Amino acid sequence: MKAYDLAIVGATGMVGQEIIKILERHRYPLSSIHLFASDRSAGRQVFVNHRQLEVREPTASSFEGIDIALFCAGAEVSRYFTPIAIQSGAVVVDNSAAFRLEPGNPLVVPEVNADDINSHKGVVANPCAITIQLVMAINPLHRVNPIKRVIVSSYQAVSGMGTAAMEELTGQTKLVLAGQSAVPHFYPHQIAFNLLPEIDVFLDSDYTKEEMRIIEETRKVMHLPELAIAATCVQVPVFIGNSMTVNVEFSHPMSPDEAQEILTRAPGVEVRDDPTVSLYPHPWSAVGLDTVLVGRIRRDLSHSNGLIMWVVTDNLRKGSALNAIQIVGEMVKRGKL
Amino acid sequence: MKAYDLAIVGATGMVGQEIIKILERHRYPLSSIHLFASDRSAGRQVFVNHRQLEVREPTASSFEGIDIALFCAGAEVSRYFTPIAIQSGAVVVDNSAAFRLEPGNPLVVPEVNADDINSHKGVVANPCAITIQLVMAINPLHRVNPIKRVIVSSYQAVSGMGTAAMEELTGQTKLVLAGQSAVPHFYPHQIAFNLLPEIDVFLDSDYTKEEMRIIEETRKVMHLPELAIAATCVQVPVFIGNSMTVNVEFSHPMSPDEAQEILTRAPGVEVRDDPTVSLYPHPWSAVGLDTVLVGRIRRDLSHSNGLIMWVVTDNLRKGSALNAIQIVGEMVKRGKL
Repeated sequence: MKAYDLAIVGATGMVGQEIIKILERHRYPLSSIHLFASDRSAGRQVFVNHRQLEVREPTASSFEGIDIALFCAGAEVSRYFTPIAIQSGAVVVDNSAAFRLEPGNPLVVPEVNADDINSHKGVVANPCAITIQLVMAINPLHRVNPIKRVIVSSYQAVSGMGTAAMEELTGQTKLVLAGQSAVPHFYPHQIAFNLLPEIDVFLDSDYTKEEMRIIEETRKVMHLPELAIAATCVQVPVFIGNSMTVNVEFSHPMSPDEAQEILTRAPGVEVRDDPTVSLYPHPWSAVGLDTVLVGRIRRDLSHSNGLIMWVVTDNLRKGSALNAIQIVGEMVKRGKL
Repeated sequence: MKAYDLAIVGATGMVGQEIIKILERHRYPLSSIHLFASDRSAGRQVFVNHRQLEVREPTASSFEGIDIALFCAGAEVSRYFTPIAIQSGAVVVDNSAAFRLEPGNPLVVPEVNADDINSHKGVVANPCAITIQLVMAINPLHRVNPIKRVIVSSYQAVSGMGTAAMEELTGQTKLVLAGQSAVPHFYPHQIAFNLLPEIDVFLDSDYTKEEMRIIEETRKVMHLPELAIAATCVQVPVFIGNSMTVNVEFSHPMSPDEAQEILTRAPGVEVRDDPTVSLYPHPWSAVGLDTVLVGRIRRDLSHSNGLIMWVVTDNLRKGSALNAIQIVGEMVKRGKL
């Protein structure tokens, strides 16, 4: 079995660290791991499988000899270094928004559209966390009973915005508990004991970028360019774990029992749904799990063909790092490296 | 002008204290105020308009000479003492779920269905907080363009569940910040830095009581017994201020500008909607306000006749105490005491 040379760009960020954790757990066939980050983190020592590795700043020659480059350092870094990595012979799995909606680049959730990997031209994009958990939950149902309309309201963790957001939530919470006022820096308003219907910048449509992402990425991943879908994305004072309510309208009626049965068999999905014992997913219970959790499956009382679900996942795990690593796994399996 | 004798049952609870605050601010024509609470709080001294009043336990004779009895001590207390209060000649404004859906009893949000007060038989019910803010936001639009379908996802503050819930959020938050584990007592799972799609008990339909409340109460207040409406109610780690996303489907298309114009003129509603400067309602900004705040008004991209809104209000203020006092005001105005 061939072993691969892997680079992680953004190795010291939230997602980079999660990628390292998953690599350690699964013992992938890697001959070398190269860690890159911005100059602020360069020089730092990181342990991977008990080996001490130095984090370096990426340069034009950093990707020579690299088979796979995982990018999780934001869209700007991806845009700059991806062409360099590809020219050096690496295949890029990009966790940023840089290439997701570019028509030539596959946007992949392996359980949904792994075959799209076959047509990649050097880069496969990882959808945003909130898209991944949505398509994981609705695609298995869509295969049985085509979906006509989807409405999402999200409850998103601050870790999706990086460590600065997590520190702001911690710091502000301490201040509020001490009876002091919490001045916002990272967010436009206080996030401690509060919530904000604003994730990423506003667009002309008065939707945020995050809301348009979930709409457009879902259409692309599911190959449904005309899917009727709307979303409201809300930042909540939770560290890890994205939640969402999903109102789905099918072509024909679907009973909650049937949906539960389909989702129980769906790979990567775990149904937790027993109201009699308050069993349903919640963010705290999803941290560190690889699965997308679905619960509160019930009829949508406002539509005869509708169901409502509550979907929760670790936004750093299946929402980002794990999905990226699964894409790499599919590439290896398909000889697409 | 006649002055009234007022009783508050549940005077030491979250809503009772809010009622006292509002009474102090507005200087209603009251000749006396009588404060009642459970034996745990009986004997406590409370200042109202600089007068010291003793909190007493209600008895069979407590309501003699009382014109208006405001109940905010839960459904059990309301069920027991309301007939006694009515027999004593008082009119009851009940903040509990005891009488809300009983066909003979008006359920009133004054801005929406004040005329329903005219037919009361001794008790007027105050809707639950989340219903009040929903109907305040959608009824003005419905009058112009009849609503066909409503989908709500809520983000509800712990104060709606009383002081024990607030203490649990505070206590657990301190423990988590100290790196300790937070054992749930009041809630079935941790509430600090977490959220739970369970408010009140589950029913056979797998909806919670809170979810069915918003559905059935909205139909009753708006006189739309067949309204297609569904809701998911979620408890979030916020002390005060309920938020919700509302997807509304109208009979005909309605532009966001038209909705904004209608809502700007609607009494009790305040539009805060300018994405260019991150202006939208959020719970922290709603505390202590009398209005229902609406923002993020935009097209529902999943339906040509749809709009999406973000609605926030102080759940203790217009969500409970203020609405109850407004009902009293309408009764006085209509001579229905």
